[in-house]
Amino acid sequence: MLIVMGAHATPEQTEAVCKKIEELGFKPHPMPGASRTSIGITGNPGPIVPEPFENMPGVVELIPVTRLYKLVSREFKGENTVVQVGNVSVGGKDLVVVAGPCAVETEERMIRIAEKVRDAGAHMLRGGAFKPRTSPYSFQGLGLEGLKILAKAREVSGLPIVTEAIDAESLDLVEEYADVIQIGARNAQNFSLLKKAGRAKKPILLKRGMSATLDEFLLAAEYVMSEGNYNVILCERGVRTFADHTRNTLDLSIVPEVKRISHLPIITDPSHGTGKRHMVTPLSRSSVAVGADGVIIEVHDEPEHALSDGPQALLPDQFARLMEELRLLAPVIRRGLPLVAV
Amino acid sequence: MLIVMGAHATPEQTEAVCKKIEELGFKPHPMPGASRTSIGITGNPGPIVPEPFENMPGVVELIPVTRLYKLVSREFKGENTVVQVGNVSVGGKDLVVVAGPCAVETEERMIRIAEKVRDAGAHMLRGGAFKPRTSPYSFQGLGLEGLKILAKAREVSGLPIVTEAIDAESLDLVEEYADVIQIGARNAQNFSLLKKAGRAKKPILLKRGMSATLDEFLLAAEYVMSEGNYNVILCERGVRTFADHTRNTLDLSIVPEVKRISHLPIITDPSHGTGKRHMVTPLSRSSVAVGADGVIIEVHDEPEHALSDGPQALLPDQFARLMEELRLLAPVIRRGLPLVAV
Amino acid sequence: MLIVMGAHATPEQTEAVCKKIEELGFKPHPMPGASRTSIGITGNPGPIVPEPFENMPGVVELIPVTRLYKLVSREFKGENTVVQVGNVSVGGKDLVVVAGPCAVETEERMIRIAEKVRDAGAHMLRGGAFKPRTSPYSFQGLGLEGLKILAKAREVSGLPIVTEAIDAESLDLVEEYADVIQIGARNAQNFSLLKKAGRAKKPILLKRGMSATLDEFLLAAEYVMSEGNYNVILCERGVRTFADHTRNTLDLSIVPEVKRISHLPIITDPSHGTGKRHMVTPLSRSSVAVGADGVIIEVHDEPEHALSDGPQALLPDQFARLMEELRLLAPVIRRGLPLVAV
Amino acid sequence: MLIVMGAHATPEQTEAVCKKIEELGFKPHPMPGASRTSIGITGNPGPIVPEPFENMPGVVELIPVTRLYKLVSREFKGENTVVQVGNVSVGGKDLVVVAGPCAVETEERMIRIAEKVRDAGAHMLRGGAFKPRTSPYSFQGLGLEGLKILAKAREVSGLPIVTEAIDAESLDLVEEYADVIQIGARNAQNFSLLKKAGRAKKPILLKRGMSATLDEFLLAAEYVMSEGNYNVILCERGVRTFADHTRNTLDLSIVPEVKRISHLPIITDPSHGTGKRHMVTPLSRSSVAVGADGVIIEVHDEPEHALSDGPQALLPDQFARLMEELRLLAPVIRRGLPLVAV
Repeated sequence: MLIVMGAHATPEQTEAVCKKIEELGFKPHPMPGASRTSIGITGNPGPIVPEPFENMPGVVELIPVTRLYKLVSREFKGENTVVQVGNVSVGGKDLVVVAGPCAVETEERMIRIAEKVRDAGAHMLRGGAFKPRTSPYSFQGLGLEGLKILAKAREVSGLPIVTEAIDAESLDLVEEYADVIQIGARNAQNFSLLKKAGRAKKPILLKRGMSATLDEFLLAAEYVMSEGNYNVILCERGVRTFADHTRNTLDLSIVPEVKRISHLPIITDPSHGTGKRHMVTPLSRSSVAVGADGVIIEVHDEPEHALSDGPQALLPDQFARLMEELRLLAPVIRRGLPLVAV
Repeated sequence: MLIVMGAHATPEQTEAVCKKIEELGFKPHPMPGASRTSIGITGNPGPIVPEPFENMPGVVELIPVTRLYKLVSREFKGENTVVQVGNVSVGGKDLVVVAGPCAVETEERMIRIAEKVRDAGAHMLRGGAFKPRTSPYSFQGLGLEGLKILAKAREVSGLPIVTEAIDAESLDLVEEYADVIQIGARNAQNFSLLKKAGRAKKPILLKRGMSATLDEFLLAAEYVMSEGNYNVILCERGVRTFADHTRNTLDLSIVPEVKRISHLPIITDPSHGTGKRHMVTPLSRSSVAVGADGVIIEVHDEPEHALSDGPQALLPDQFARLMEELRLLAPVIRRGLPLVAV
Repeated sequence: MLIVMGAHATPEQTEAVCKKIEELGFKPHPMPGASRTSIGITGNPGPIVPEPFENMPGVVELIPVTRLYKLVSREFKGENTVVQVGNVSVGGKDLVVVAGPCAVETEERMIRIAEKVRDAGAHMLRGGAFKPRTSPYSFQGLGLEGLKILAKAREVSGLPIVTEAIDAESLDLVEEYADVIQIGARNAQNFSLLKKAGRAKKPILLKRGMSATLDEFLLAAEYVMSEGNYNVILCERGVRTFADHTRNTLDLSIVPEVKRISHLPIITDPSHGTGKRHMVTPLSRSSVAVGADGVIIEVHDEPEHALSDGPQALLPDQFARLMEELRLLAPVIRRGLPLVAV
Repeated sequence: MLIVMGAHATPEQTEAVCKKIEELGFKPHPMPGASRTSIGITGNPGPIVPEPFENMPGVVELIPVTRLYKLVSREFKGENTVVQVGNVSVGGKDLVVVAGPCAVETEERMIRIAEKVRDAGAHMLRGGAFKPRTSPYSFQGLGLEGLKILAKAREVSGLPIVTEAIDAESLDLVEEYADVIQIGARNAQNFSLLKKAGRAKKPILLKRGMSATLDEFLLAAEYVMSEGNYNVILCERGVRTFADHTRNTLDLSIVPEVKRISHLPIITDPSHGTGKRHMVTPLSRSSVAVGADGVIIEVHDEPEHALSDGPQALLPDQFARLMEELRLLAPVIRRGLPLVAV
């Protein structure tokens, strides 16, 4: 059930409703909107009886929630969620571009790439310190050392950091060092990790699982939100199909569908979504045109020597040209693409 | 093998090479380019020995063809193929929009929709007279009567007609009445029909099969071209995957890949590619942004009463707004979107 | 609607009902069962009013049909359909094994293989005269010449012939020369060909399309049956998925589902279903164990020189061992595997 | 590289080689076979130079390993691995049947089902205490309480326990209480969990990921083995495809392929693999016929009230009939199906 507080409800009234929900043994999720606050309820094993709430001061409506998902849905929150990362707003009017190497390799390279993508107009910096690799014998990332390099690169470039957590331990470290905690496709149904991400104090970039349906994708976000972290950025990164001309099939149709039923922002990852350098720029344009709130792009200055995923990385000057293309494209779909304020 | 004639080779020299190819029992495919003509060879069971050709006048190069496909490849023809349909050029600088109902229903409706899509800026008119339906008990199309209605709609609207042929008989009729012969996804590996389309005198709009790989898609075009019809327009219409939020998964990544290895134009079908009205406009923008040469869109003025595929049809005014969006988008990717010259 | 005639209804009463159906402009499909005859109706645009039938002599029940499919369903015919091919019964108590090369190559080879598979216990002989090939430059089959070789091989071996028709012309020829007309996966939604197969006088072996859902598979059979040919043998031949360790993914779960909702026999094709020789025997056992009515197996005596699909063909002695394994397996699942009566 | 010790090599010689490997900073994996011991090496960033080993006493061969996977491959270990769970051998001559409810619900029910499946001939007992559920609002399992119930059921029934671990914490608990630790499909690329499972002292039942390729499946096992736990039982549980007549598509072809390239045992899960009760028995027969080492089956005595996955659970008497069918089938494929020795 969703409890809608009137436009003139006081904070005390909202709090009283939340308290009542807790007294019943459930968890309240107050979500302030532009004109009024909704309160979602989770933790209830079945439908909730309306009686205890219907006469409480400030309550104007009680909406039974019928969807599989609650907190992620537009039923729960009509307006778009804008996730704030430092100066950067994800899901607002402006597009957001995250860029950087697949993996953190050395401090010199990380800083060099960070400055280049910042100069080209990127708003956030990506780079993996903990790498989920298909083979145990592939480079697994620099770990804590990588996080420290990322922090250094943030200091130098001024860009907030997005990096992946792959388990409980790395999540604690990533939360400490990074600005956005990424949960990767391979952990998209690692529910323990999702719950822990839901207790973190930093925004979550949540990738769609390799064969996740729309419901599974949104329910992964629901796992995070049900623990109290409402700052979730969804990310389409390609799904697994029979098609063999790409590494994955980037499913852009999920963007308008997510926008229709959820208030969460969604970006795309054309680098993993295609696995081929020559496709990254067209699919980035395509992602923006379909309505995504941004893109996350792999950039490397020597992709032939990259420790992972070199074939899909753009060179810095290719990335700069991509930014120019997106800058032309943004106003056509009534979005902005601001220069980053460092 | 590909035989390249020099920039100054005479038509007689080219013809002599073609004759020699025929004498050997093979089929020559001369393909004039901007600066020089290439001659492809098909019908050879194995590699061709270069000797008979290497000293013929006008021949400047003999290129062994290693790819699976020959005539569709950029090895064979470096420049983009532009398919001419009346005044409309498909694959040139300008984008092309094909619009109309899924099926031809009545003359009145067809003409009404034709005029509306033309007024909104469509360049060609679509409408099925022969409908390949999953169930034998679904509406199978008006057949010849439908083709006559389409011809009438062309007369009234001035728009060239695209309509589907589903077998040898209907192909003859469609060739007689229409301007472009569509081969649908369900016949994408109906090789007899593809060969017959290759002997038709009208351009072919060839849809990707429901689970066609890139190779299978291009080899379907190769079937058509190997019979002598080089006017093939490819069309991505969504493929079958596990994803259940759309009818098919529109695989936009195939557009840049086709552009890289083939000279043929490619458009997309966001109506069948998604099956949902609210996705057609965003996926159309997305298709144009990824580099497609155009889109084919279902438009119906009473979709709730359409005899097939109503849920994916745009209303005429939704289509008009889509055209406005594409008109803004085209220059950003350095394409034009001309008003149709009727 | 399904009209059920009583156990004591006379042929004249059944005929009178069929006539009434025709008078209404529809098509009657009388289907005699062990104890009583059902009459299906097709050609009706919507639900049929029961009045004209409910008081006709012999009629005992009028059952509204709600399924997507009519004639293929167990609602229409409760007992298993047994398709008779000469002495061979497909879909009865006994398992049926069809074997032979992918393509007919030479008369000598065809006869040699025919005798070997017959001696090992095969009940029918397969071999393609018309080959649907992905590339126009691959071997397309011997055509009519191949059919004549097959007829010769039947004469010598005594085995009935199964071979594929790929279009209207080849279907006429195949109907003339063969005992069972195969419709391949690539033509599984070539509805014109399916309708024509429905007017043929020989049984149809209908392969599942490469990405056909259960509904699409059964509706393809419905197309055949709706034209009056009720002798349809279904064949699971693997579907297209992301899995790359096989050519296709053999979907054995469709066998019990087909058995549950349809009365038609179903066999499997472990050769195309896997594309790998070493998997053919285990997947054949597996097919029989899951409840299939038989298997169709590619056998070649020099697979390394086969004109198509060599890597998936069993050698004759491998096939003989497979037959021994199936002979042990059959009684366990209460089926027979008879020696062919030549 | 793989170091093969001669048939007469002493344990000390083998140990010396392992030490040398450790001195180089790598990890040795000695794997005793029937006639000789192989030593795998992991932890090396690139190819290993053979010099330090080629003259060591007892070493008879140095084999460069070219496959993606090392420890799971038959190159590394030619003979089948037999995983011992109490009295039960998985991967040996005899088939193994694991049965029980999807989730542990109450002690009474668990014990009741345990006794029934044991009486019918099951060799191990399954039941989830930690349930990975798509929705955060679905029943998540009884946790530690569930493990205690399972231990009680083992005590009463004498059957070893298989149950799933979903994160680091639950893995420690499962290792303490259960006999086999299951890693589920959703965690098939949770590499941290796989590594931790590799340090556990109990055998691992590793399910194939929902869209895992063969390589990904085997590399998940490689993750476990590379940490030193060689007791891995693979489990095919169906993959995600477009097919909609089952919950997943059980890919039985992976069984012979795994057997060809790996020495690990593999069983199948027809309950999750189909999601439909009426398919479980035929697909179980089919799994055994294709060469699987056993099956894991969901059994519930009141499936209509099950807290999860009721529609795919067999009733105890259906399970008993399944066991009878497998008992008839086993000898045909030269396997045994022993009565459990409790």
